[in-house]
Amino acid sequence: MKQIRVCVVGYGNVGQEVVECIRHAPDMELAGVVEILDVEDPRVPIVKSVDCLEAVDVAILAIPSRAVPKVAPEYLAKGINTVDGFDIHGDSMAALRKQLDECARQHGSTAVIGAGWDPGTDSIVRMLFMAIAPQGITYTNFGPGMSMGHSVAVRAIPGVKDAISFTLPAGFGQHNRDVYVEVEDPSRFDEIAQAIQQDPYFVNDKTRVTLVDNVDKLKVMGHGVLIERIGASGTAHNQRLELKLTLSNPSATAQIMVAAARASTRLEAGCYTLPEIPPIDLLPGDRESLIHDLV
Amino acid sequence: MKQIRVCVVGYGNVGQEVVECIRHAPDMELAGVVEILDVEDPRVPIVKSVDCLEAVDVAILAIPSRAVPKVAPEYLAKGINTVDGFDIHGDSMAALRKQLDECARQHGSTAVIGAGWDPGTDSIVRMLFMAIAPQGITYTNFGPGMSMGHSVAVRAIPGVKDAISFTLPAGFGQHNRDVYVEVEDPSRFDEIAQAIQQDPYFVNDKTRVTLVDNVDKLKVMGHGVLIERIGASGTAHNQRLELKLTLSNPSATAQIMVAAARASTRLEAGCYTLPEIPPIDLLPGDRESLIHDLV
Repeated sequence: MKQIRVCVVGYGNVGQEVVECIRHAPDMELAGVVEILDVEDPRVPIVKSVDCLEAVDVAILAIPSRAVPKVAPEYLAKGINTVDGFDIHGDSMAALRKQLDECARQHGSTAVIGAGWDPGTDSIVRMLFMAIAPQGITYTNFGPGMSMGHSVAVRAIPGVKDAISFTLPAGFGQHNRDVYVEVEDPSRFDEIAQAIQQDPYFVNDKTRVTLVDNVDKLKVMGHGVLIERIGASGTAHNQRLELKLTLSNPSATAQIMVAAARASTRLEAGCYTLPEIPPIDLLPGDRESLIHDLV
Repeated sequence: MKQIRVCVVGYGNVGQEVVECIRHAPDMELAGVVEILDVEDPRVPIVKSVDCLEAVDVAILAIPSRAVPKVAPEYLAKGINTVDGFDIHGDSMAALRKQLDECARQHGSTAVIGAGWDPGTDSIVRMLFMAIAPQGITYTNFGPGMSMGHSVAVRAIPGVKDAISFTLPAGFGQHNRDVYVEVEDPSRFDEIAQAIQQDPYFVNDKTRVTLVDNVDKLKVMGHGVLIERIGASGTAHNQRLELKLTLSNPSATAQIMVAAARASTRLEAGCYTLPEIPPIDLLPGDRESLIHDLV
């Protein structure tokens, strides 16, 4: 069977894990890593442009969310499918889907956006919970754990040397943010703290910003989510639905991106969020066997 | 917008709940109930044959699993989509899919099989858990609760007047069965108990059969499931994934069948299990709004 040739764009925490996941995937091979920064890893071919790689079917974009709207179209226009972990819910997600859908259809390629655990597999579970119990309320509770999207957003703020942002569950879908920053000029800390609190990633949550000498020793990749729904189906009003995950975050994100890369090769041209894809297409192997063993 | 016209075949516990769910669905209307037994309900039109109903788009088959292979093709051949809650995993499910797929394609209709919570939405979650953490072990633990499929199977055994079968979780995917029976001739109890224990529904589980005077006072529709996976993604080997549902069983089954009926109108002709359907198609409403609000 023909292997799916995948390139990984970006070689940070997630990109490195994507490479690991591709090695374990029975139906994939690594075409190479595209990284514009100077990084070295003797185990993988690292190039500056995808044009240096041959016959790439899918590009997994392990890059900050905000870079996705610019980078994804470059690949889609070459007929290469893209997968990203774009994590800004709501209007931004809808806008990205519209933008990439037009581009992908024009070039006969496929984009899967928001392919992480939230947005991503959690989005599917939220929809399943609504299908099982259409009336009711769903609470999505994150953490405690480091949010990669939020941490990257803080690091992009001028004057910040390094930062991590912890998501603290405050119950019933409410969250607090706990941000630790190293700054270039400590006298500008108040100004930087304010810029963080006003960033769209943080503006709706109670956010504490703490100045530290070294964020490295606070770094941990564990994260989690609890999705709770109390709902009604038909005449029954005590339907209780719960999903609980505790995960190493970059590994889970990487693995879901790899599953989405697989699915992208089975879809018509266009742009998709995960709930728009048949879940069975995320898995390797023969459809009949999967149905026999897992349905 | 055109409403989806749905008929309900069978008017037992699940069928009655399906009617209730259709009443609450914003995009559906009840065409009527097809029930060959003599039942009356002033609130719904009950007929002996679907030919007495007009312009039916989808038939929800709220009938025993074992009747599905015979009944579904009758509807599919009329160009009516079918949804069933066929609940025999493995070879039987695969065989039904093959049978109905041929029939549905031939007549331009769509069949959704195994549209309950397990098989059904649980099957989707098992696949998602494998996509997130491809290496690992999943345990599906049911109950405590009455299994409708198992209870119906016992009632079909000659000499049984009424019966219920409880599923007791025994940990790590193991289950015991607790069956309560009323029989026509108590002197034949041992023979009946043995027939139950040898039935394909029970043969793999430790099954206790108890003779009672009246099973009615033991009937409760609450049920539940805990799906646990410990898995690895990339380099991370402590990924913990859990789904926990406690449900009123016929209501949840009915509601998922209604969601599958909706999805059936959005699919190409053929036969599908739930993981073969984009989850977003289970929900009513505009796709862009669902993505905005739930992704």
